[in-house]
Amino acid sequence: MLFLVRMDVNIPHDLPAAQADEIKAREKAYAQQLQRDGRWKNLWRVVGEYANYSLFDVESNDELHTLLSQLPLFPFMKIHVTPLAQHPSAIA
Amino acid sequence: MLFLVRMDVNIPHDLPAAQADEIKAREKAYAQQLQRDGRWKNLWRVVGEYANYSLFDVESNDELHTLLSQLPLFPFMKIHVTPLAQHPSAIA
Amino acid sequence: MLFLVRMDVNIPHDLPAAQADEIKAREKAYAQQLQRDGRWKNLWRVVGEYANYSLFDVESNDELHTLLSQLPLFPFMKIHVTPLAQHPSAIA
Amino acid sequence: MLFLVRMDVNIPHDLPAAQADEIKAREKAYAQQLQRDGRWKNLWRVVGEYANYSLFDVESNDELHTLLSQLPLFPFMKIHVTPLAQHPSAIA
Amino acid sequence: MLFLVRMDVNIPHDLPAAQADEIKAREKAYAQQLQRDGRWKNLWRVVGEYANYSLFDVESNDELHTLLSQLPLFPFMKIHVTPLAQHPSAIA
Amino acid sequence: MLFLVRMDVNIPHDLPAAQADEIKAREKAYAQQLQRDGRWKNLWRVVGEYANYSLFDVESNDELHTLLSQLPLFPFMKIHVTPLAQHPSAIA
Amino acid sequence: MLFLVRMDVNIPHDLPAAQADEIKAREKAYAQQLQRDGRWKNLWRVVGEYANYSLFDVESNDELHTLLSQLPLFPFMKIHVTPLAQHPSAIA
Amino acid sequence: MLFLVRMDVNIPHDLPAAQADEIKAREKAYAQQLQRDGRWKNLWRVVGEYANYSLFDVESNDELHTLLSQLPLFPFMKIHVTPLAQHPSAIA
Amino acid sequence: MLFLVRMDVNIPHDLPAAQADEIKAREKAYAQQLQRDGRWKNLWRVVGEYANYSLFDVESNDELHTLLSQLPLFPFMKIHVTPLAQHPSAIA
Amino acid sequence: MLFLVRMDVNIPHDLPAAQADEIKAREKAYAQQLQRDGRWKNLWRVVGEYANYSLFDVESNDELHTLLSQLPLFPFMKIHVTPLAQHPSAIA
Repeated sequence: MLFLVRMDVNIPHDLPAAQADEIKAREKAYAQQLQRDGRWKNLWRVVGEYANYSLFDVESNDELHTLLSQLPLFPFMKIHVTPLAQHPSAIA
Repeated sequence: MLFLVRMDVNIPHDLPAAQADEIKAREKAYAQQLQRDGRWKNLWRVVGEYANYSLFDVESNDELHTLLSQLPLFPFMKIHVTPLAQHPSAIA
Repeated sequence: MLFLVRMDVNIPHDLPAAQADEIKAREKAYAQQLQRDGRWKNLWRVVGEYANYSLFDVESNDELHTLLSQLPLFPFMKIHVTPLAQHPSAIA
Repeated sequence: MLFLVRMDVNIPHDLPAAQADEIKAREKAYAQQLQRDGRWKNLWRVVGEYANYSLFDVESNDELHTLLSQLPLFPFMKIHVTPLAQHPSAIA
Repeated sequence: MLFLVRMDVNIPHDLPAAQADEIKAREKAYAQQLQRDGRWKNLWRVVGEYANYSLFDVESNDELHTLLSQLPLFPFMKIHVTPLAQHPSAIA
Repeated sequence: MLFLVRMDVNIPHDLPAAQADEIKAREKAYAQQLQRDGRWKNLWRVVGEYANYSLFDVESNDELHTLLSQLPLFPFMKIHVTPLAQHPSAIA
Repeated sequence: MLFLVRMDVNIPHDLPAAQADEIKAREKAYAQQLQRDGRWKNLWRVVGEYANYSLFDVESNDELHTLLSQLPLFPFMKIHVTPLAQHPSAIA
Repeated sequence: MLFLVRMDVNIPHDLPAAQADEIKAREKAYAQQLQRDGRWKNLWRVVGEYANYSLFDVESNDELHTLLSQLPLFPFMKIHVTPLAQHPSAIA
Repeated sequence: MLFLVRMDVNIPHDLPAAQADEIKAREKAYAQQLQRDGRWKNLWRVVGEYANYSLFDVESNDELHTLLSQLPLFPFMKIHVTPLAQHPSAIA
Repeated sequence: MLFLVRMDVNIPHDLPAAQADEIKAREKAYAQQLQRDGRWKNLWRVVGEYANYSLFDVESNDELHTLLSQLPLFPFMKIHVTPLAQHPSAIA
C-alpha cells in the first residue's frame, strides 16, 4: 500500500552541532535500512529545500506511523502523508 | 531529471458528457503512451480526490512543459510541479 | 484500518432540482448500505455546513478510493482523507 | 453532544526532558481517565504527525473547554474544535 | 450555550432577481422570528461585506444545525461556527 | 460603535511563571474594569483554545486601539479587529 | 475616523457589456461625489490588478457600511476594511 | 525600474473558441511589441501551468499599470506585481 | 510614485528592554524625519495590532528599499509593499 | 535551463553578530562567484524585505540543488524554486 510523504526538516540553530550531527547520522542509517528492506521505496530531495518527498510501501497505517515516528529527526520535522491508490490509467 | 507533479482535475458540470468522455479517453491514451516511453514513470491516484501525483523523468524543463501542456485535460487541471534532486541518503 | 474523511458538498445552483434530488437519494442509499456493512463506521454533520466528517474502516487505500469515488455526489464534493493510526494513550 | 477535536503537539526542544516526560505521563493518565468515563470517546493518532483527532461526548461547550484546558499538554498544543450534529443519512 | 457564527452570502449573479428577492424576504422573516424567541441573540453586519457575525444561544449542536440549515439563504452561504465558553475574566 | 475582536494568547514557555502570573492578574483586573464601565461588552472563551472573542462598544477607532494596546497581555497576543454595523434584519 | 479599504472587482464575463458599462459609469460618478464631499479621501489603483486601496474618513462604522454597500459594483467586489488609528510617531 | 510580474491565465471554458483565439492572437502581438521596445524584458512560462513570470523595466508604477491593464487577456488573468531593487551582492 | 506599505512589528520578548527602547526611539526619530521631508506621506496604526499602514512617495523602487531597510526596527518587522497607480475615478 | 528562485532570509536575533557577519560575507563572495560563472544570472532584492528573487541557469535539478544548499545562509533561508520554460510569445 503506497503513501507519498513530504518531510520538512527544521533543526533549531541552537541545537549543539555534535548533537545534530549524531541525529543526522542515525537518520541516514535508519533511512537506508528501510530502503533496503523495501518499505521506503523512494527518497527524493526537494530542490532548494531541506525537505524530501518519499514513497512508502507498507501493510497498514499503523506500520507507516511506527516507521515515521521512529525517525531520529522526527521531533524536528513537519510531516504530511498522502495515501495513494491505483490510478485507472497507470500501466503498472 | 525527476519532477513530482500534482494534477487536480476540475471538469465543469455543464461540459457535455460526450465531450468530457472523449477528452478523458484521449487523456488516458496519451498518459499510457508517455508511461510506455518511460518519461511518465509513475502515476498514482490521490485517495478520495479527482487528482493524481505523478513522477516524470525528462531531459529539461521545456520537455516537461511540452508534455504537460499537451494533456487533453490540461485546460481543466490545476498542476503544480516540484523539481527533485538526488537525496544523499538514497541508496538508488 | 481507519481513515478520517471530510467531505464538503457544493451542488451548482443551476443543476436541475430533480437531478439533484435523484443524486441525493442515491447518495443516501449508498451511504446507508456502506454503514450497514461496517466500512463507513461513522457519519457526522459539521454544524452549520453542507459537509460531513466520516470514519471509514477498510482494508486498503484502494478500497477506500473505490468507495469514495463511487459516491453519487463525488463530482460535487471536495474530499480530504486523513489516515489514522492506533494512539498509544487510547484504551480501545 | 459530539465534538471532533484536532490537537497538534509542539513541545519546545529546550524543555528539559524530565519535565517533558512528566507532563506526557500525566497527559496519558488524564486521557485514559476521560476515556474510561466515556467523555473522550475516541483518540486516534494522525499518521506521521505528533497530533491526534479525538471525539468528545459532553453536555456543553463549557464542559468541553474545561476538559481540554486541563490537559497537561494544553500549553504546548494547538487545538481546533468542530461541533458535530446528527447526519440525516446516518443509521446510528 | 453560545456559538459565534459567521455567514458570508454569495448569491449567483444569474439567479433571477425575483427569486433572490423572495429568498431574502423569507430570510429576514426567519431571522427576526429566531431573534424574538431568543435563540439568535445578536446579528451584526460585517462592515463592507455581504456577511454577518451572529451569536446563537441554543441547547445543543443539533439544534443549532437545524436552525442554520433552514435559513432560506443556506444554499448561498459559507458558514463557520465557533463554540464559545464562559471566560474566567467575564463578569457576566 | 461595535467591534468584534479576537485575541489569541501565546505566552513564551520560558517567561518566568511569576512574571506570567503577575501579567495575567493585571489582565484580569483590567478586563473586568473595562467590562464594568461598559466598553468591553462581552468576553467569551473560544472552546479549546487560549483565545477569546470580545465585543467592544467605543466612540472611535482611536479609543479602541488605546484600550487594546494597554492590555497587559498585548505583547503576547495576536489581535484581529472586525468593525460591525447595524444589520437590516436585526430587531435590536 | 479613518479606514483603509481594499476592493477587488470581479465582473462575470457573461454579464452583458452594456450592463457592465452602465454599472461602471454609475460607480465612477458615485466615487467622485464621495471624494468631493470628503469622505472618500483617497482612491488608488493597485498596479496590475482590477482593485483599489481607498482611504475613508467617516463618523462611524454604520456610515462606512452604508457608503460601501451602495457602491454600484458592490455585488461584484470583495471588500476588506481595516480600521486605522493615530500612530504615535505620526507628525500629522 | 524593475518589476517581477506573475500572470495566471484562466479563460472560461464557455468563451467561444474563436473569441478566445482572437484575444490570444492580440495578446501575443502586444507582448512581442512590448518586448521589442524593451519594457517587457523577459517572459518565461511556468512549467506545467497556464501562467508566466515576466520582468518589466518601466519608468513608473503608472506606466506599468497602463501596460498591464491593456493586455488583451487582462480580464482573464490574476496578476501579482513585486517591485524589485538593486541587490548589494549583484555584480550587474 | 506612491507605495502602500504594511509593517508588522515583532520584537522578541528576550531582547533586553533597554535595547528595545533605544531601537524604538531611533525608529521614531527616523520616521518623523522622513515624514517631514515628504517621502513618508502617511503613517497609520492598525487598530489592535503592533502594525502600521504607511504611504510612501518616492522616485524609485531603489529609493523605497533604501528607506525601508534603514528602519531601526527593520530586523524585527515583516514588511509588504504594494505599488499604487493613478485611479481613473480619482479626482485628485 | 532556467529556474526562478525566491529566498527569504531569517537570521535569529540571538546569533552572535560576528558570526552573522562572517556568514554574510561568505554568502556575498559565493553569490558573486556564481554570477561571474554565469549560473546565477540575476539577483534582485524584493523591495522592503530581506529577500531576493534570483534567476539560475543550470544543467539539471541536481546542479541547482547543489548550488543552493551550499549557500552559507542556507540554514537561515526559506527557498522556493519555480522551473521555467520557453514561452511561445517570447522573442528571445
